[in-house]
Amino acid sequence: MIPEASATLGRATDCGDAAPRGKVCLVGAGPGDPDLLTLRALRLMQQADVVLHDHLVSEAVLALVRADAERIYVGKRERNHALSQEEINALLVRLAGEGKRVLRLKGGDPFMFGRGGEEAEALAEHDIPFEVVPGVTSAAGASSRAGIPLTHRDYAQSCVFVTGHRREGGAQMDWPALARARQTLVIYMGLGMLPEISRRLIAHGRGADTPAAIVERATTAAQRVVAGTLATLPDLAKACGARPPALVIVGEVVALRERLCPARPDALPVRPHRDAPECAADPLTTDR
Amino acid sequence: MIPEASATLGRATDCGDAAPRGKVCLVGAGPGDPDLLTLRALRLMQQADVVLHDHLVSEAVLALVRADAERIYVGKRERNHALSQEEINALLVRLAGEGKRVLRLKGGDPFMFGRGGEEAEALAEHDIPFEVVPGVTSAAGASSRAGIPLTHRDYAQSCVFVTGHRREGGAQMDWPALARARQTLVIYMGLGMLPEISRRLIAHGRGADTPAAIVERATTAAQRVVAGTLATLPDLAKACGARPPALVIVGEVVALRERLCPARPDALPVRPHRDAPECAADPLTTDR
Repeated sequence: MIPEASATLGRATDCGDAAPRGKVCLVGAGPGDPDLLTLRALRLMQQADVVLHDHLVSEAVLALVRADAERIYVGKRERNHALSQEEINALLVRLAGEGKRVLRLKGGDPFMFGRGGEEAEALAEHDIPFEVVPGVTSAAGASSRAGIPLTHRDYAQSCVFVTGHRREGGAQMDWPALARARQTLVIYMGLGMLPEISRRLIAHGRGADTPAAIVERATTAAQRVVAGTLATLPDLAKACGARPPALVIVGEVVALRERLCPARPDALPVRPHRDAPECAADPLTTDR
Repeated sequence: MIPEASATLGRATDCGDAAPRGKVCLVGAGPGDPDLLTLRALRLMQQADVVLHDHLVSEAVLALVRADAERIYVGKRERNHALSQEEINALLVRLAGEGKRVLRLKGGDPFMFGRGGEEAEALAEHDIPFEVVPGVTSAAGASSRAGIPLTHRDYAQSCVFVTGHRREGGAQMDWPALARARQTLVIYMGLGMLPEISRRLIAHGRGADTPAAIVERATTAAQRVVAGTLATLPDLAKACGARPPALVIVGEVVALRERLCPARPDALPVRPHRDAPECAADPLTTDR
């Protein structure tokens, strides 16, 4: 009666460790550091015939894909899609139909802002066996490596994840709910709309002095953290030349960073890009 | 200038792969399936001198800890704490002070309802070197293995995580925000207050027919999913003898499960515990 731990979604008939041919694995690659891949992700990466990836999957992670696997870059940098979502879905269906072991490698977790749900729907619709492998979502990676707990009994007993990259822009975001106190707000891909985030949250009642931070390229060798307040963060981001991919974290928990990583500035960098020399050396300590 | 990918939090002076003596690693063990451990977690588990764990870490995961490491069960089942949080903090400080390689293994992610923030604060306060290793949070595990994407362009562009296990009970929860439409709500440890969750969300405007599910022991061999609606879920949970640890997921995305895993009932079990034979055979298909 008790099912196997390795049971998979969809119509898979082979649930063992080996990836059967003609199956698609939608795999979370985690936030960037290859050490944060799951054991299952690594195993599937080493079995795949063809790997579809985008710019949110780090080079260090891609280096662990089976050397003779075909690699297809499907893009998805904002406004620079190599393929549309519909084309990606169709490609997954076609490659699996050719009997290949197909790996769709996605940054973070496939079911958290990864559009993995849409890919899974397309596969189910075409009767393609598939499996979804969860990953460490970027917010968790940023949280651990930047010294910012997402929840804390004294400050935040809930956490909201939203995306700043959406069809209709910020107009349809639920600002009154996002501005609530005693919660941590994480905005994926929020850098582009940071001025709007700051303005609207303050307008809806979140304190202008609420601690807030940007975590750029979380968990990679190039991770950078810019910390300030809801009011100051947009200017700090500009001064430091902050660039995507980046998460924006808003809430009292951001202030814990000062206690959780004060001693070794090299361990948790708050420093300018080499091409943005005008940036304040340490917005964390100079601005708050 | 660019820091190392393996940079750690706190006052660690050794950031390499080997866990230095006298250091504490706060490590996310993921949702239960040992295949969802990260590479870093597994490596640290195999180097530790002493491991502190609780009931949210599965037996299958514990089996991968270095065989001769000392194991200390620190409990934390509701109302059955082997040690208080303060005692756990003190124990971590003492063991590290003795020069041991200390591993604090936590279910899911250490900074998401894991009270890892409090443990990190205690370590920082006592100048103990520490590192935080993120893990696959239980909601992501449940999402992938139950066929319930947490976000989806058509249904939910945000996701809220809250805990049902809190000092003050449900009285202080922000029900108006939790009841908002077009978001996915995940309640960690929400089973005990499921009747209140259902009643309050409906009272605050969430539709009674909103799809909702319980995912018990996500990603383990004993995973079980009970799906219904916000109105029907409390009775279904009772009929099926649902037991913690379990997540409650509320939102339109729950309905995707029917499309994403219809074919193999054994792959995604919706079935009674063997000791609850009175349970409806398949609440998913009979109730919605």
